Amino acid sequence: MPQTSLMMTLQFSSSGTPVNVQAKHFLIPGLGRYDHKYSPKLPSKSPKTSIFNSHQIPNPILHQPPVNQSVAAIVFGDGSESRLYPLTKRRSEGAIPIASNYRLIDAVVSNCINSNINKIYALTQFNSTSLNSHLSRAYSGASLGKEGFVEVIAAYQSPEDQGWFQGTADAIRRCLWVLEEYPVAEFLVLPGHHLYKMDYQRVIESHRNRKSDITIVASNGITKRDQDPGVGVLKINTENQVMQYSLKSNKEPVNYAVVEAYLFEGYWEDMRSIEAFYQANMECIKKLNTGYNFCDRDSPVYTIPRNLPPTVVNDAMITDSVIGDGCILNRCKIKSTVVGMRTKIRDGAIIEDSVIMGSDVYQIEDGRESSIKSTSVPIGIGENTEIRKAIVDKNARIGKNVKIINKDNVEEGDREANGYIISGRIMVVLRSAEIPDNSIL
Amino acid sequence: MPQTSLMMTLQFSSSGTPVNVQAKHFLIPGLGRYDHKYSPKLPSKSPKTSIFNSHQIPNPILHQPPVNQSVAAIVFGDGSESRLYPLTKRRSEGAIPIASNYRLIDAVVSNCINSNINKIYALTQFNSTSLNSHLSRAYSGASLGKEGFVEVIAAYQSPEDQGWFQGTADAIRRCLWVLEEYPVAEFLVLPGHHLYKMDYQRVIESHRNRKSDITIVASNGITKRDQDPGVGVLKINTENQVMQYSLKSNKEPVNYAVVEAYLFEGYWEDMRSIEAFYQANMECIKKLNTGYNFCDRDSPVYTIPRNLPPTVVNDAMITDSVIGDGCILNRCKIKSTVVGMRTKIRDGAIIEDSVIMGSDVYQIEDGRESSIKSTSVPIGIGENTEIRKAIVDKNARIGKNVKIINKDNVEEGDREANGYIISGRIMVVLRSAEIPDNSIL
Amino acid sequence: MPQTSLMMTLQFSSSGTPVNVQAKHFLIPGLGRYDHKYSPKLPSKSPKTSIFNSHQIPNPILHQPPVNQSVAAIVFGDGSESRLYPLTKRRSEGAIPIASNYRLIDAVVSNCINSNINKIYALTQFNSTSLNSHLSRAYSGASLGKEGFVEVIAAYQSPEDQGWFQGTADAIRRCLWVLEEYPVAEFLVLPGHHLYKMDYQRVIESHRNRKSDITIVASNGITKRDQDPGVGVLKINTENQVMQYSLKSNKEPVNYAVVEAYLFEGYWEDMRSIEAFYQANMECIKKLNTGYNFCDRDSPVYTIPRNLPPTVVNDAMITDSVIGDGCILNRCKIKSTVVGMRTKIRDGAIIEDSVIMGSDVYQIEDGRESSIKSTSVPIGIGENTEIRKAIVDKNARIGKNVKIINKDNVEEGDREANGYIISGRIMVVLRSAEIPDNSIL
Amino acid sequence: MPQTSLMMTLQFSSSGTPVNVQAKHFLIPGLGRYDHKYSPKLPSKSPKTSIFNSHQIPNPILHQPPVNQSVAAIVFGDGSESRLYPLTKRRSEGAIPIASNYRLIDAVVSNCINSNINKIYALTQFNSTSLNSHLSRAYSGASLGKEGFVEVIAAYQSPEDQGWFQGTADAIRRCLWVLEEYPVAEFLVLPGHHLYKMDYQRVIESHRNRKSDITIVASNGITKRDQDPGVGVLKINTENQVMQYSLKSNKEPVNYAVVEAYLFEGYWEDMRSIEAFYQANMECIKKLNTGYNFCDRDSPVYTIPRNLPPTVVNDAMITDSVIGDGCILNRCKIKSTVVGMRTKIRDGAIIEDSVIMGSDVYQIEDGRESSIKSTSVPIGIGENTEIRKAIVDKNARIGKNVKIINKDNVEEGDREANGYIISGRIMVVLRSAEIPDNSIL
Repeated sequence: MPQTSLMMTLQFSSSGTPVNVQAKHFLIPGLGRYDHKYSPKLPSKSPKTSIFNSHQIPNPILHQPPVNQSVAAIVFGDGSESRLYPLTKRRSEGAIPIASNYRLIDAVVSNCINSNINKIYALTQFNSTSLNSHLSRAYSGASLGKEGFVEVIAAYQSPEDQGWFQGTADAIRRCLWVLEEYPVAEFLVLPGHHLYKMDYQRVIESHRNRKSDITIVASNGITKRDQDPGVGVLKINTENQVMQYSLKSNKEPVNYAVVEAYLFEGYWEDMRSIEAFYQANMECIKKLNTGYNFCDRDSPVYTIPRNLPPTVVNDAMITDSVIGDGCILNRCKIKSTVVGMRTKIRDGAIIEDSVIMGSDVYQIEDGRESSIKSTSVPIGIGENTEIRKAIVDKNARIGKNVKIINKDNVEEGDREANGYIISGRIMVVLRSAEIPDNSIL
Repeated sequence: MPQTSLMMTLQFSSSGTPVNVQAKHFLIPGLGRYDHKYSPKLPSKSPKTSIFNSHQIPNPILHQPPVNQSVAAIVFGDGSESRLYPLTKRRSEGAIPIASNYRLIDAVVSNCINSNINKIYALTQFNSTSLNSHLSRAYSGASLGKEGFVEVIAAYQSPEDQGWFQGTADAIRRCLWVLEEYPVAEFLVLPGHHLYKMDYQRVIESHRNRKSDITIVASNGITKRDQDPGVGVLKINTENQVMQYSLKSNKEPVNYAVVEAYLFEGYWEDMRSIEAFYQANMECIKKLNTGYNFCDRDSPVYTIPRNLPPTVVNDAMITDSVIGDGCILNRCKIKSTVVGMRTKIRDGAIIEDSVIMGSDVYQIEDGRESSIKSTSVPIGIGENTEIRKAIVDKNARIGKNVKIINKDNVEEGDREANGYIISGRIMVVLRSAEIPDNSIL
Repeated sequence: MPQTSLMMTLQFSSSGTPVNVQAKHFLIPGLGRYDHKYSPKLPSKSPKTSIFNSHQIPNPILHQPPVNQSVAAIVFGDGSESRLYPLTKRRSEGAIPIASNYRLIDAVVSNCINSNINKIYALTQFNSTSLNSHLSRAYSGASLGKEGFVEVIAAYQSPEDQGWFQGTADAIRRCLWVLEEYPVAEFLVLPGHHLYKMDYQRVIESHRNRKSDITIVASNGITKRDQDPGVGVLKINTENQVMQYSLKSNKEPVNYAVVEAYLFEGYWEDMRSIEAFYQANMECIKKLNTGYNFCDRDSPVYTIPRNLPPTVVNDAMITDSVIGDGCILNRCKIKSTVVGMRTKIRDGAIIEDSVIMGSDVYQIEDGRESSIKSTSVPIGIGENTEIRKAIVDKNARIGKNVKIINKDNVEEGDREANGYIISGRIMVVLRSAEIPDNSIL
Repeated sequence: MPQTSLMMTLQFSSSGTPVNVQAKHFLIPGLGRYDHKYSPKLPSKSPKTSIFNSHQIPNPILHQPPVNQSVAAIVFGDGSESRLYPLTKRRSEGAIPIASNYRLIDAVVSNCINSNINKIYALTQFNSTSLNSHLSRAYSGASLGKEGFVEVIAAYQSPEDQGWFQGTADAIRRCLWVLEEYPVAEFLVLPGHHLYKMDYQRVIESHRNRKSDITIVASNGITKRDQDPGVGVLKINTENQVMQYSLKSNKEPVNYAVVEAYLFEGYWEDMRSIEAFYQANMECIKKLNTGYNFCDRDSPVYTIPRNLPPTVVNDAMITDSVIGDGCILNRCKIKSTVVGMRTKIRDGAIIEDSVIMGSDVYQIEDGRESSIKSTSVPIGIGENTEIRKAIVDKNARIGKNVKIINKDNVEEGDREANGYIISGRIMVVLRSAEIPDNSIL
């Protein structure tokens, strides 16, 4: 009888011993519910909605899968409990720009492509327009008569289900009819906003060799940041079998099935905070790259192909920074900064320790519309403006002689009406925000 | 001051005189509400949500539009009051297969492309997975460094709007932030499930020449089908200015703005019923094509490019039919029938006056899985089966010696539990339904 | 020291014993010359041009190859000693249409793609326009930021080499600078006009396991056609090591290097004659497919994706035939025939045992140009015309009441001025030829 | 009777009066021969080869052209009398990289696309591999079921024509059978290596309004460089009718037909020398852009879409320069320089007034291959190297402590064996050349 099984990439940090792995947090919201609903031990309870049962029904297989299509990846575009606001105000987490030229979800999709997994379903619901657009343009077009790599499944209404996806498990349940069109033997469930490089083929091998029902990928790495032991615990024995895991408060003894842990050693950033996102950007520009390597030719990172003009530099001193495609840099100093695509930096600007996300378009400043908008601040960084330890979201309009320096050394602050917030002492300027000339923040 | 205006393609049938055009029905559900909300005469009431005001704000235009990008099309993927159930059980109306190789929405998108309108937003919400997938694969991939033709905007949750789109006007309101990224001067609002060929450039010219705020495209054609005068009325004067129009019961005098009618003469099918859909298919296979011409080289119809193998015919008599790509036709008779892609018809089958939508995949029947599924009916039309005046949705499994002939001459009937319904005496077999051997329906 | 080695797909038929394999013919014209020039035993003679030496030079490798890019395929688009004239009058052999929807070269390129070899160089020179166009449109477009599958290297002039490619070896020599851009460890040299399915990964494994310098793939199959022992001989010992091989008259003892044979059992058609091409088409339409399977979903055959309208059939009896996309079939009988894309067959036509290649375009017959061309025969098959055992090349214009039946039962005949030739009793109508009404051939 | 006519973009400089326009040079080599051969007044002389006659034959038009397909562009990829050696050593002129991210031919192809001309034939012959590859990957892939923009017609052998294209006219003659497949009314003949922006629709309008047989586009601009009156003369009268033009020595009175001149005012660089190419690069980086604007959003320049990682800058002072995608810039000074894609510049390097073309690949320097190539100079610019007024072609390997400064102030010099030449005092380092450590050039 055919059996469908499940692999999940989860990130746990270990306290050093494989016996008791401390979970930094669970990557799949609603995992607790998920386990009950889809437990292979309990098919009688919810036979129609179970992932596992759906393929246990004698299934006239439509299509003999090529080897690497027997694994399908399900990527979640948004984490429902995001702590990345305001970056997620108008977009889901997977769509956040990172490292000048990319979006967060490119990392996981590239992992799939580089692991030769070509059937990828991206489930999206929350603020999903940017993400859907990115995935469609980058990965969904049919080419060579082949289907695209990524099939976007946006939340939708149906006669049976008028509401939104109710968590991860519900999302999968409601998409089963799509997922079942190909005879997938194994699902790889992936949060779309994590940053790491992994060869999923090794996970699949481990999963198959150990005949697991569920394999949980856990990070064994020790990070520099504070432990967050209250979030979750994954207990495994010396054979890496999962004994117990808990989501936040409620512990969940594992007695249902063969659940194995796959321990991953390597950089893995789960973007649990603005600070984590900021650090991930900073690490990718260090000379001795300790973070995620966007420039690794062996495992390239894909994204939307573009043909922007070259970056034009008039007079810039640039130190320890990465510069995206098609920027316009006038007389300025840039240090330890990620400069995104089409960023325009004007004369006299100084930018340090920051993430400038850039712009979606070029603004024309040729006087043609000047009568209308003489009072408006143009997109980009204004003359003689100084920015330190900030994240400037896309299309922001920073005026002249502005200082974004967290002058009062605020730890956390909500100035959204003024176009920014402060999180972990990091200044975050909102998408399309306008910071007037001479402001000092 | 820049002014954004609006063109809507609506279909009205005329009673012969342009003074009082009888509306067959309104193409944009919620139009009544729409008018109130977005009336340019009433900006004070809802200044933040108005389409028209959104561009009247002094707007630092980001991007000088190429000439034909000053018009953006907004295509609605689903009509909320669909009468095409069960074809819409798992898909929105725009995704319904038609004429063997196409989906309904291909007609409107092809109109846009052939009219040189390259900025198309497709708003989708209801059962939208198939439609999103189709649009992404066919029209959304970036190529030549250009963005794709169609940007899909699936319904999504956001912090401000936890609910679904509430009708057409609400959908547009919630997508304004996307639509505003390009300085669009005119919106062309199009239902995505209508079948007609129109050069929208002529509509745009009329709209501009007459300095309309809103132009309503109305069909002046007289159709063979019954009038449905209860749906709506569009009253226009001899200058084609709209005097009054009504949605169903409530009349709406036009006193708010310059509203013009553009009268279209030509084939226009609004798919208001299963019968209408059936007729549209039948008309496209007539020798003297009186319906929509899918083979017109001057205005080609686009869809997903495919590279299926050729249709294999073992021994078939085929009369007045169209055959999609990659079919397998054994010894069979096919008459006045639309045969969709990858349809498999087995020996002895007789099919007349029907629409067979075909299959998404090829089913392998080589005995490899035979032990599991010997009892299952394979995809396609079984041996010695007879089908008359039926619509057979995709991936249906019709057994041997089946008769789908509406034997009791039922007018309307709901046999959904048995895999079909009857609508206007037309048998409609559901998607993926299984009709056991020897059934007589 | 890095070593580059070579695999060649050659087809030999065996006389039953592996000791003395009779070569039907050599697949790579100029192979004899090739051996001398590139013998790894003789680097001193031509050190600059040798394939093998080019990589023995300490080579600062630019780029760490992903595993499956260490093999590059070199596909030759044309065989210089083609016997497929007149099908090759305006195109190279690889561009000949086959099985309604394909070109010959699709088979070999699809083998590469299905074998996970993504670096394919197609060398073209003779009548190469159609082939270059086909390869570019089907396989060369960059997508996903990846390069295309196939890089076309058309013959070109350079300051050092004003002449054309002088055979296979010279072609490779002159393209070495391109081929060397990627650190390829093994070359797979493939004639582009053969029809067979092979998993090249198995050949590569054998090549690596046996540490060959050169592996020759030889067909061990026994075909129904006459042996052609005069062409070549491949002598191998019981370990499949190549002892001797000869190209036509001159024998070539193998004493230079480790040359192994890889024996392939399976369908392999080398298209050595019009008759062979005709048979290959006939075999692909047999009910029990004994030839090349174009419909095999496990190893799909790729080609240019298209979106033609469905085939329109007015009244046809079709037996044991395959029908390409977008045909127009009026009242006609079609038996044991391959009908290519966009073929138009008019009332009363009878076609048997034939290959109709179809048309590149639709001809408009609406009277708009009628005054100019009333005397001209339109593209397609005319009313009441009868065609038996013929190959009708693309865009041919067959008039009314024509009989293409080889009425005088001619074995071989050159009637090129009249638009056709006869080869092996098969009538071959030339591309774009016009056969006037009432002709009897 | 249908009439095909011809527009050619040629560049002439005017001496100020439209009556006697001095030709800087002729853009289409072999134009003199062309005129004789294809004169519409002399059809009897060469009826079979004439462009004009080919469509005057009553022609059963296959395909009703969409409006903007009645014009086809013929782009020549190489000028046979190139003065751009050694940039053309391995590539044709159209394939020379320019402005960091582009190839020369992108300018003309983008003109066509922006002028809504979608049928472009590129004729290539000389060193054409790079150009063919670029065109295929950027413009030839089928998408949306549409054919690509550019069809590459590489030189090829055929039974009738064993030789190469003999000049422009011969190339067109031999491609007529391809060009005739679409019913083109007008040909636009364009050299592929010129740099200018032109709306060809205006040329077409002028051509049609004035009912010309041939329209010659001539530059009316006055350039800073020396006149070169010996090359050619175009005499026009006050109605812009061409009275006489000459190619080099032989004058050619115009008495055959209606030949009109279209005078173009604007930047137009014909790349007649290394110095001209160098200047064109320098002009595109000036603050007040006086040359070709690669960043103009109204008329974008297309090229291969790419997804390179962002440029990594460790410590650079950059002045008046443009930086291509994916560079790696260590501690260095860059002034008035065009830095191409993937350029790696190492610590201490100083680059001024130069064009660095970059690299096709990233070289891995992680010690994995270090044993083999410890002596080899890596790709890019070495430590403490100084480069002034130089063009460094792709993949060059410039060692440490090198000075490329034209130390002896040589005007012209051929040091090709040493990896460079000097032209107009500009140092030109050859593609893939290796300049050893401590060299002073």
